[in-house]
Amino acid sequence: MITRMSELFVRTLREDPADAEVPSHRWLVRAGYIRRAAPGIYSWLPLGYRVLRKIEQIVRQEMDAIGAQEVHFPALLPREPYEATGRWTEYGPNIFRLKDRKDGDYLLGPTHEEMFTLLVKDLCSSYKDLPLNLYQIQTKYRDEARPRAGILRGREFVMKDSYSFDIDDAGLQKAYDLHRSAYVRIFDRLGFDYAIVQAMSGAMGGSASEEFLAIAENGEDTFVRSPGGYAANVEAVHTAAPEPIPFEDAPAAHVEDTPDTPTIETLVALANDRFPREDRPWTGADTLKNVVFMVTEPDGTRAPLAVGVPGDREVDLKRLAAQLEPAEAEVFTEEDFAANPGLVKGYIGPARTPGGAGLGEESASTVRFLVDPRVVSGSRWLTGANEPGRHVFDLVAGRDFTPDGTIEAAEVRAGDPAPDGSGPLELARGIEMGHIFQLGRKYAEALGLKVLDQNGKLVTVTMGSYGVGVSRAVAAVVEGTCDEKGLCWPREVAPFDVHVVVAGKDAAALEWAADLGRKLDEAGIAVVLDDRKASPGVKFADAEIMGMPTIVVVGRSLADGLIEVRDRASGERTEVAVDDALGHLLAVVHGMPDLGEPDLVEPVAE
Amino acid sequence: MITRMSELFVRTLREDPADAEVPSHRWLVRAGYIRRAAPGIYSWLPLGYRVLRKIEQIVRQEMDAIGAQEVHFPALLPREPYEATGRWTEYGPNIFRLKDRKDGDYLLGPTHEEMFTLLVKDLCSSYKDLPLNLYQIQTKYRDEARPRAGILRGREFVMKDSYSFDIDDAGLQKAYDLHRSAYVRIFDRLGFDYAIVQAMSGAMGGSASEEFLAIAENGEDTFVRSPGGYAANVEAVHTAAPEPIPFEDAPAAHVEDTPDTPTIETLVALANDRFPREDRPWTGADTLKNVVFMVTEPDGTRAPLAVGVPGDREVDLKRLAAQLEPAEAEVFTEEDFAANPGLVKGYIGPARTPGGAGLGEESASTVRFLVDPRVVSGSRWLTGANEPGRHVFDLVAGRDFTPDGTIEAAEVRAGDPAPDGSGPLELARGIEMGHIFQLGRKYAEALGLKVLDQNGKLVTVTMGSYGVGVSRAVAAVVEGTCDEKGLCWPREVAPFDVHVVVAGKDAAALEWAADLGRKLDEAGIAVVLDDRKASPGVKFADAEIMGMPTIVVVGRSLADGLIEVRDRASGERTEVAVDDALGHLLAVVHGMPDLGEPDLVEPVAE
Repeated sequence: MITRMSELFVRTLREDPADAEVPSHRWLVRAGYIRRAAPGIYSWLPLGYRVLRKIEQIVRQEMDAIGAQEVHFPALLPREPYEATGRWTEYGPNIFRLKDRKDGDYLLGPTHEEMFTLLVKDLCSSYKDLPLNLYQIQTKYRDEARPRAGILRGREFVMKDSYSFDIDDAGLQKAYDLHRSAYVRIFDRLGFDYAIVQAMSGAMGGSASEEFLAIAENGEDTFVRSPGGYAANVEAVHTAAPEPIPFEDAPAAHVEDTPDTPTIETLVALANDRFPREDRPWTGADTLKNVVFMVTEPDGTRAPLAVGVPGDREVDLKRLAAQLEPAEAEVFTEEDFAANPGLVKGYIGPARTPGGAGLGEESASTVRFLVDPRVVSGSRWLTGANEPGRHVFDLVAGRDFTPDGTIEAAEVRAGDPAPDGSGPLELARGIEMGHIFQLGRKYAEALGLKVLDQNGKLVTVTMGSYGVGVSRAVAAVVEGTCDEKGLCWPREVAPFDVHVVVAGKDAAALEWAADLGRKLDEAGIAVVLDDRKASPGVKFADAEIMGMPTIVVVGRSLADGLIEVRDRASGERTEVAVDDALGHLLAVVHGMPDLGEPDLVEPVAE
Repeated sequence: MITRMSELFVRTLREDPADAEVPSHRWLVRAGYIRRAAPGIYSWLPLGYRVLRKIEQIVRQEMDAIGAQEVHFPALLPREPYEATGRWTEYGPNIFRLKDRKDGDYLLGPTHEEMFTLLVKDLCSSYKDLPLNLYQIQTKYRDEARPRAGILRGREFVMKDSYSFDIDDAGLQKAYDLHRSAYVRIFDRLGFDYAIVQAMSGAMGGSASEEFLAIAENGEDTFVRSPGGYAANVEAVHTAAPEPIPFEDAPAAHVEDTPDTPTIETLVALANDRFPREDRPWTGADTLKNVVFMVTEPDGTRAPLAVGVPGDREVDLKRLAAQLEPAEAEVFTEEDFAANPGLVKGYIGPARTPGGAGLGEESASTVRFLVDPRVVSGSRWLTGANEPGRHVFDLVAGRDFTPDGTIEAAEVRAGDPAPDGSGPLELARGIEMGHIFQLGRKYAEALGLKVLDQNGKLVTVTMGSYGVGVSRAVAAVVEGTCDEKGLCWPREVAPFDVHVVVAGKDAAALEWAADLGRKLDEAGIAVVLDDRKASPGVKFADAEIMGMPTIVVVGRSLADGLIEVRDRASGERTEVAVDDALGHLLAVVHGMPDLGEPDLVEPVAE
């Protein structure tokens, strides 16, 4: 059945929606694919829903192909399983919670580890029931603090989540590898330019994990890669720490007046002016910048945390957040400083100088103090003396102060060495499209999922957890393919293969176009026919904004026995004789190479 | 790809689940199709999800066939549109409400009239955009007071809801008729024995509406039908009211002592004993029974309501509830009586006797008083005198008391006359599977959905609303088909067509069976192969409980060149030669009539 524009439920917009920050949001709304229902919550119009279902189907096929079995869990979930694993609390304000009429606590599921674990516990009792891979394609909920970018980061979204269950680590590795291979096929089919990078596991727990990032300027994730093949989400980058430095011969720490040095730059300038080094000038990397945060745990308890990084680097708030999750950090406010008089703003440091309390749980300030891995034992620092207008020189880690630990919170910069020695890092941005985790036994232990092994002994099952952002993929494909005129769908996910524009009011043209549409439809090709009484200009603009891969123009040249076939992505236009039209279009849609020559439409025999 | 029982995520249970009240719940759980996640909230296992998706697909095909376009709305919805139509309040405790992190009010959508109306308002502006039929297959939520019967009445469930938009009433009627025809095709394909009955429109508003009920002993709905073709949900039955009766010659009302007559039976017996009628004995139908309820409006206000019905009938609480919706009625408690001393329990009546306050908003009691339509002007009643142990005789409606109105709350009984004169009613039970409504302009008016008509004048759009219980249909099919051994799927919705049981441990049998399975699979037939190391008894029992329409037994007789083909529903067993097995099974699956004769497997040419 061909779809007629005169009947299709769509309305294109000439103006960008006011809240659209990224191209996918702008074009999906303007082309009539989605509409906002509430912040971060969208309705799918017919065109958008066709794309969503096509992507679902690709994901389903590839999951089925690795032997995963499809199930479907509720979105409305009881509190108890999430209480048992601690996630009811850990999620903090990031999940939607509600009560039923009997005052029972429920949540809208953000991800289903607990439910899958309990279901497998219910059905499986022996190693013979494993390995097991289950998946669902399901609507999920997350009460994002800042829903943005349309369906790229929504509060209601569709995910494929799957879970593997194995008797041992080797089985988990195999399940993980299987999923990895399925994800490669899925993202290849979606036509993404993507990177597979090492990842943090976040609130999910677990160990090994990788992300599939669609490479995109507007991506929220930053990742690094090296010439030698290292690739990681910037949150997961480990800093290559130098070796400890002997400090027997290091000079003693000494506090100096450093008036008017509120910034690292002014401090370095003053040091080079008044306290020049013999070996080389002072640089920002010689200073230790200590930034204080207020950290709130999911249970609401709050405590300050000082983070020490080389002064030539900023603290990367996303890297910090990833390290602290599920706790959340906010920059210290004036009120926080007022409540902690030992912390002298602008001059904070770990030195226990006469005027200052220092940093660290064992110091007088008792403020927890974590440092960048570069702050190794024996490293010498120029840092705040905890007195206004004073800094301490030659403060030696391991001699003059002992941090409470290290933290990966300093910014990663292009040119930094890859931790595995594979060369300098470059930075790029991407959209998280898939995430694969080796969860291990965290959930199975919390919920008591054990099976009998070959020796009749109860053993705890080991699990993996694997996600694909299905609704997000709709937007990610757009980010990678749209142009200044609108959407440009890759054929595998396009709502229709061919958009037939009847240009002009000639009844014969409409009739011929409808007939072509019927023939294409009979050949299994999805066609939308613009049969409206509108100007050719309006129709061309709509065809371009709506983004079907092939546009056929049936207009005045029909009288000369010609139609025009346009490739939406390249803009290439081909005049085709009406008698060759069907064959030409079949070749275009099925990816045959020889478009201009009907006699080559059939694959060439070897 | 054939599915192997050794790998399929399923576990059959030998015992009924403790909470299973109806066969569909019992068998779907025992056969490993669904599992309870919370009260009224279920998870779909692989077998169950296959059935659900098949039913979805049938519904989708038939909706597409009438030109309806598929969209998809969120389940998490903002309060405002539901506030605008009043349903935020009207739904009372029956919807799930929640707040987001910014204290915004949301609900989990029970049905989407508001959202569709607003979307159409956003996209459509002219009569040229109409008619329009939109649908979605989506997860819905309803906080049922008593979720029961598994997925027959759940709190999270899948519905197809569609909405029609038309410029005028004729268009609405056409859209309604189109939906009705699509529903007939859907329920025919699902294999239901169903009835189409007149229905109440309930909280939805609107006028004409019909329900599609799957006829089932365990159905929650009672419906009536007459030999002449009248059919209605019992809630929607209109009582054929008699003509008013002249009362000029009626005797005056008189109060009599009627000690020890707490029931209608004792009252009738005493009346016949002490106050015999001349024309015939007193019966229950001569008495007026007045039952008092406390009615709670959605906004929480409460007020008593007295319902007067002929004493030979009970008040039907479901009929009453349907009339009062969205308000809810509860039977008067002792506390309620204590708070309303004018209402003398057991002797309540509308008579304003010296000792009593009477009933009605204008009476001293001020209690609203609605009567059965049979209580016409001039009808004479024996009823309570509002004094303990006393009743009033010859109380005449319209002379001695005036009710505040009528109400359809008396029970409907087999043999009652159909309101259209088409004969005596019979009663049956059913499961509501579909509901079609002519909504009219209620939602369009509340939300301002207007379009320009042919004359450039803004007119309010008229709407229809149409639902199918998709997840409920899974259970309803089971109610209509299961037997004492388990599930018995009709072929169109069965998770697999053929269940191949390898009976015995013969490796050759397994190999032959797997080969048959592959050939069937290549022919497009879905096969599950029981390849487990289990006894034939266990495998037969599982095949019967799981309910695939055709069971193939590959066992000892394979050595003699024979297999057995069993029809799950009829129990019929056919021995088939191995060489004919494939052709025979293709014929069985494709519904060919001539199963025993391979030469008739191909359709016979005319």
